[in-house]
Amino acid sequence: MPNPTAAMLVIGDEILSGRTRDANMYFLAGELTKMGIDLKEVRVVSDDAPSITAAVKALSEAYDEVFTSGGIGPTHDDITADCIAAAFGRSIDVREDARDLLVSHWEARGTEVTEARLRMARIPEGAALIDNPVSIAPGFTLENVHVMAGVPAVFEAMVATVLPGLTGGKPLLSQSLRINRGEGEIAGPLRVLAQDFPDLSIGSYPFQRDGVYGATIVIRGSEGPQVDAAMARLAETFPA
Amino acid sequence: MPNPTAAMLVIGDEILSGRTRDANMYFLAGELTKMGIDLKEVRVVSDDAPSITAAVKALSEAYDEVFTSGGIGPTHDDITADCIAAAFGRSIDVREDARDLLVSHWEARGTEVTEARLRMARIPEGAALIDNPVSIAPGFTLENVHVMAGVPAVFEAMVATVLPGLTGGKPLLSQSLRINRGEGEIAGPLRVLAQDFPDLSIGSYPFQRDGVYGATIVIRGSEGPQVDAAMARLAETFPA
Repeated sequence: MPNPTAAMLVIGDEILSGRTRDANMYFLAGELTKMGIDLKEVRVVSDDAPSITAAVKALSEAYDEVFTSGGIGPTHDDITADCIAAAFGRSIDVREDARDLLVSHWEARGTEVTEARLRMARIPEGAALIDNPVSIAPGFTLENVHVMAGVPAVFEAMVATVLPGLTGGKPLLSQSLRINRGEGEIAGPLRVLAQDFPDLSIGSYPFQRDGVYGATIVIRGSEGPQVDAAMARLAETFPA
Repeated sequence: MPNPTAAMLVIGDEILSGRTRDANMYFLAGELTKMGIDLKEVRVVSDDAPSITAAVKALSEAYDEVFTSGGIGPTHDDITADCIAAAFGRSIDVREDARDLLVSHWEARGTEVTEARLRMARIPEGAALIDNPVSIAPGFTLENVHVMAGVPAVFEAMVATVLPGLTGGKPLLSQSLRINRGEGEIAGPLRVLAQDFPDLSIGSYPFQRDGVYGATIVIRGSEGPQVDAAMARLAETFPA
């Protein structure tokens, strides 16, 4: 059985303007790979309702799981929850369970309950809340879309809540070999190796360091003995 | 006149598997913002021909300029050039001008000319070469798509070659103010500010440092006096 597939949607003008360097994509990619869910596509779109809604629809139809990051705070540019509701034709309003979580958190801290703050309790009809141990305001899962905050500490905590509930696949195993020769010299034998092991993914990542050209060859697959066999052949072809 | 729009397509399993942290998106976003080209969308797809071709088509139709990163080396997993040719219905083969560049570079270094290495001279019919001062193998521009290497040093050098030839817009100006109050407190006045300055983009980026909650408010726009006026109002509303 093939592994489940996933996509990620990053929402935020701050990434597209170059103000902020995205960190969540790299984190999520690593976590999904560990549990055998294949991240197939990432899209970054701006804080623009039609763009968000269209991307959510397309990704939700094409992949098993979709993870979003960003746009669920209290300010006017936080429109993700409304866009997700629109994408699935659901109503959205402040929901009691999310409201209770937030209000009891605020009361314990003497924080005033404002209309703006309560925006964080807007949850689409039929969604399940995602626990946020860092700053309380919850994310949510609707259909196959998991909606999470953009602040890395919160995003990571929410991912840790969501992943154990998903069905993983065979974790991708990988081995790598650093070869101090130019890619042009490696490419021929590598192509033959890829043909002989069609179930494996064989990637070549060139580097150039202190005037030395080389490439790191990464062999990935879910069957350990196959990965071992391909790596043994590679090491034999290019002895250190 | 609105600014020109752009999209980026990052090609590479190594990003989606979490092995490598993408650096090119952040670099390109910053460069485009400086010259007034609005980066509207980024997609990351794997080294898979149908995925690359479909993404190139979609982005090329939707935006003024498209920048791709990755998949143009000599190895079997470098399929970007062929996919771009397919997306535009062009033929592709080793082209004389690209071949000459590479062969004279290799001859000067006593590097053997192999079939694998010559893959880097495969250029779609009708494309213009993009100079690569770092490692010679050229990128290319076909229609509105600029095809560049994934290795950051080479990607950056190619971007520096391409950008001066494009028509920019009004550079986006931005000012930011750090406010040490929770977003829930800032959100109400910020919404009013956004309504009063509909031509500006006003973003709120929450942070939490040493137990202090706050948000950096970024006001972006192409008209300096407008940005100044909005920032003055914001500073008045939230005195330090």
